[in-house]
Amino acid sequence: MRRRAAVFACALFGLAIAQEPARDDAPRYAADGRLILPANYREWIFLSSGLGMTYSANEGGSKDPSFTNVFASPSAYRSFQRTGTWPDKTTLVLEVRDSQSRGSINLGGHYQSRLAAVEVEVKDAGRFPGKWAFFGFGASTGPAKQIPVTASCYGCHAANGAVDNTFVQFYPTLLAVAKTKGTVKPHAGE
Amino acid sequence: MRRRAAVFACALFGLAIAQEPARDDAPRYAADGRLILPANYREWIFLSSGLGMTYSANEGGSKDPSFTNVFASPSAYRSFQRTGTWPDKTTLVLEVRDSQSRGSINLGGHYQSRLAAVEVEVKDAGRFPGKWAFFGFGASTGPAKQIPVTASCYGCHAANGAVDNTFVQFYPTLLAVAKTKGTVKPHAGE
Repeated sequence: MRRRAAVFACALFGLAIAQEPARDDAPRYAADGRLILPANYREWIFLSSGLGMTYSANEGGSKDPSFTNVFASPSAYRSFQRTGTWPDKTTLVLEVRDSQSRGSINLGGHYQSRLAAVEVEVKDAGRFPGKWAFFGFGASTGPAKQIPVTASCYGCHAANGAVDNTFVQFYPTLLAVAKTKGTVKPHAGE
Repeated sequence: MRRRAAVFACALFGLAIAQEPARDDAPRYAADGRLILPANYREWIFLSSGLGMTYSANEGGSKDPSFTNVFASPSAYRSFQRTGTWPDKTTLVLEVRDSQSRGSINLGGHYQSRLAAVEVEVKDAGRFPGKWAFFGFGASTGPAKQIPVTASCYGCHAANGAVDNTFVQFYPTLLAVAKTKGTVKPHAGE
């Protein structure tokens, strides 16, 4: 009987792992507080990508604009699907890649090439008074210091992010979820 | 003792699930042979995206080019990481999305918007004499007929794909793996 109970408990455990990835995608920090780059973020959930996006009217179109790929930690993504917003311990990774136009059989448009930089936004209410914090890794994989809260990214995300400090207006599949859940901020542009 | 053995076996079972996703991402077909669209492909592994890519010199740059996002089935992706090529039952999904330039605070470049079409390439040696087959879903989620093998995509992929019928030259993280494993075709452009 006790064996059967143990088997049952373990089967549940296996099921839990299959359905809900272990919470090993929470942000991790070095002893000095720097954020550790999630090693497998390329296997996280892709939200969307842009090419040459700019929030400044002064920036002319670049001949070689950068791609920006955004990935969400799987547990945060699954929570967003249920609630339309981000849970604590969310990690979003912005990967910046160079673009290339001519190569192999491609003759126009742009495709992605060299990794240029990685920036990470985390929600960690127990650690950051404003809940959210940004980290710039550049092209390095070592731990990164927090970007000072005086940087423009903090104010811009808080003011313009469609859902809870994030630019869900640029992630079409999540925007649809947020609209259904009623979590899009009023007047957040689309 | 028996209970402890059961716990150990179940712990191993849980571990197996955590490390190797179940093979439930193999291609599935309707009774009439049409391919069923993988419902959760947006949660698969993102390979790369392009904007306005074209293989024809005659196509001028469009003002509103399309984004193309490519996703791989998780089990195929993990196999590629180990071997540098695709196993049987691989599924690759090409998602075509409209692009938008001005919206919210964005003033230049392009970001992704409406889903325009989905195309799928599968490797299924037991079903297709050429191993690989293509399916066009358009913007529908219903099952899709195979694209006839006389279509240009078959010859183009076979002739120009850097690794086993696929354009790994446009997927930078996989290209690095394929180079390490020595699986890039000679003269496959980069």
